[in-house]
Amino acid sequence: MRSGTKHALSVCPVEVTVSVVGGSWKLTIVQKLLRGALRFGELRRAVGDVTERVLTRQLRELEADGLVHREVFAEVPPRVEYSLTPLGESARPLVDLMEAWGRNWVQATGAAAEAGPQARPLE
Amino acid sequence: MRSGTKHALSVCPVEVTVSVVGGSWKLTIVQKLLRGALRFGELRRAVGDVTERVLTRQLRELEADGLVHREVFAEVPPRVEYSLTPLGESARPLVDLMEAWGRNWVQATGAAAEAGPQARPLE
Repeated sequence: MRSGTKHALSVCPVEVTVSVVGGSWKLTIVQKLLRGALRFGELRRAVGDVTERVLTRQLRELEADGLVHREVFAEVPPRVEYSLTPLGESARPLVDLMEAWGRNWVQATGAAAEAGPQARPLE
Repeated sequence: MRSGTKHALSVCPVEVTVSVVGGSWKLTIVQKLLRGALRFGELRRAVGDVTERVLTRQLRELEADGLVHREVFAEVPPRVEYSLTPLGESARPLVDLMEAWGRNWVQATGAAAEAGPQARPLE
């Protein structure tokens, strides 16, 4: 399998993980696809306020990195479905643990009380 | 405990986790501090090619988000140490799992063969 992006050998595996799934929408995309294959429009609605351009780019990177499979069905009009590869499926425990940790963090810090409309963007 | 940043209630917990520890150097900082308290200079050398400005900002955010404790010891010159709070320590399983997943991803994709000097920056 070809890697779509360069992830340094010298970078520690934690940083590799951040690089592969840490992009702003990637974990959310993987999380939605863990429930099953979705068409682009379905995925976009499931993910929320992501632009078409950003979602397309994130999906391409996830595909290049071996996590997402894109399949075109020969129908009229053609149906395009996105699903997780086995490597994408392997992120399930990670997504689950991040969900649990995020819940605990919100509870521990009381962040809910002053929650804004949007999480801080990544740098 | 006051939350230093706003993390939306409406955002799923996975996104909260990405927001709190997903910043480019944060997981690496947490990973280094999991081994014990460090002074700024030690931490900077441990983390690698991070600028002073960026490390300072990331530490402040981690402190505001309740993960990092900053302690000033009354010595001449004053010694400043950074350590993890219990909430910061709670990220250990997450860091461990991300390390394992990153290793597996590199192995599965053969990314090592074409690794560049730097992981892709987050968006």
